[in-house]
Amino acid sequence: MISRKEIKLIRSLNQKKYRDEEGLFVVEGEKSVEEALQSGFEVIKVFRISEIGEEAMSRITLLSSPSPALALVRKPELPDASQINDLIALRPLSLGLDSIRDPGNLGTIIRLADWFGIGTIFASQDTVDCFNPKVVQASMGSLFRTQIIYCDLLQIASEFRAAGMPLFGTFLDGKSIYEEDLSSNGLIVMGSESKGISKALESLVTHRITIPSFSPSTEKRADSLNVALATAIICSEFRRR
Amino acid sequence: MISRKEIKLIRSLNQKKYRDEEGLFVVEGEKSVEEALQSGFEVIKVFRISEIGEEAMSRITLLSSPSPALALVRKPELPDASQINDLIALRPLSLGLDSIRDPGNLGTIIRLADWFGIGTIFASQDTVDCFNPKVVQASMGSLFRTQIIYCDLLQIASEFRAAGMPLFGTFLDGKSIYEEDLSSNGLIVMGSESKGISKALESLVTHRITIPSFSPSTEKRADSLNVALATAIICSEFRRR
Repeated sequence: MISRKEIKLIRSLNQKKYRDEEGLFVVEGEKSVEEALQSGFEVIKVFRISEIGEEAMSRITLLSSPSPALALVRKPELPDASQINDLIALRPLSLGLDSIRDPGNLGTIIRLADWFGIGTIFASQDTVDCFNPKVVQASMGSLFRTQIIYCDLLQIASEFRAAGMPLFGTFLDGKSIYEEDLSSNGLIVMGSESKGISKALESLVTHRITIPSFSPSTEKRADSLNVALATAIICSEFRRR
Repeated sequence: MISRKEIKLIRSLNQKKYRDEEGLFVVEGEKSVEEALQSGFEVIKVFRISEIGEEAMSRITLLSSPSPALALVRKPELPDASQINDLIALRPLSLGLDSIRDPGNLGTIIRLADWFGIGTIFASQDTVDCFNPKVVQASMGSLFRTQIIYCDLLQIASEFRAAGMPLFGTFLDGKSIYEEDLSSNGLIVMGSESKGISKALESLVTHRITIPSFSPSTEKRADSLNVALATAIICSEFRRR
């Protein structure tokens, strides 16, 4: 059974404001709910279509069509400044997201990070919320295995630099990723869909990289790749080495 | 101005049946319409929001929201069997799509083919129509620069083999693409989102490849990559060599 109060609560979680206030978010889909249950995240309650019925499920879904299962999950505690410093001191290869706005792109990037063993994503404050229902859906469970830290990305980038680590950024005029020296640590910054990497961050970049096009024509060709595709190709190239 | 008849025609082109009957398809968005005009495709008529008004544009758009421009474009002639044979004889690196159903995935794959200079895509008959409005949108103009041939993929694969060319297929138990010998010709077959590569095609594959995961855990990790992301990583790896 599901109460009116629960229906109202779940529907409110479509908005970031209420996710922040309640400290909760929604996970939909049989497989993602299973992954939530097996993760370290606190699952408050699971609603199954077999128990609450189709009509109730269609009222609480935050997606375009209802799933067989929906879970109410507590948002994890955010790491504090000293934990972040400890994290950087470990010198892992991390992703930095500068103003990624599309939920599908963020979800896909989280999935890629999981696939390529990149445990931490630093996201600028104006990047779309990772507990947005569409991000959760697109991440397909990888959200539970990846640490996403919303932060002042400029400050984090400075800390990476201060620790002597490289900062990679993608630019149209960068050096081919197939020729650039890539490392197993540092921060890979991916810029926004519309504006790329912000000027302030650009000044901290130590390695300007690019994904070269192999189109036979230099005039008529795709002029850019979507940020999720670019992330896939770049992560693959880093890990291959 | 736009007539009632034109409105009816354009709206009908949301369905493959009418696109086939009329031999026409719709391109939306300022940039894609510009690319259509600059391509070898025959543009029948361009409708601009500045001329026909917002209301008319919202009635003819086949997407979720209207664009500033919409073009009615003639579908290109399909190559016949002898042209296809000539094409294979050129021994290019080509993509084979086995039952790709999602329009966004197909559009993205067309864009990737354009980026990586892969001029021909062979698609199984049950792959989503490349003139579907969502495919056109996701391809962002790359549709005009890529030859997409709907065919009996099994037969085309046999012809590649008969011409002595390799056939690459992605499988969970394949050899790492970072270690496999890749070539600058042959057919790279990407399987469907749900079922992968069909059994009959699998028997023709000469190189079973896989994109290895770098997740530290073998139990808890993303279990697959979306077909568009896999295509991005594989095309990048082929072209890098």
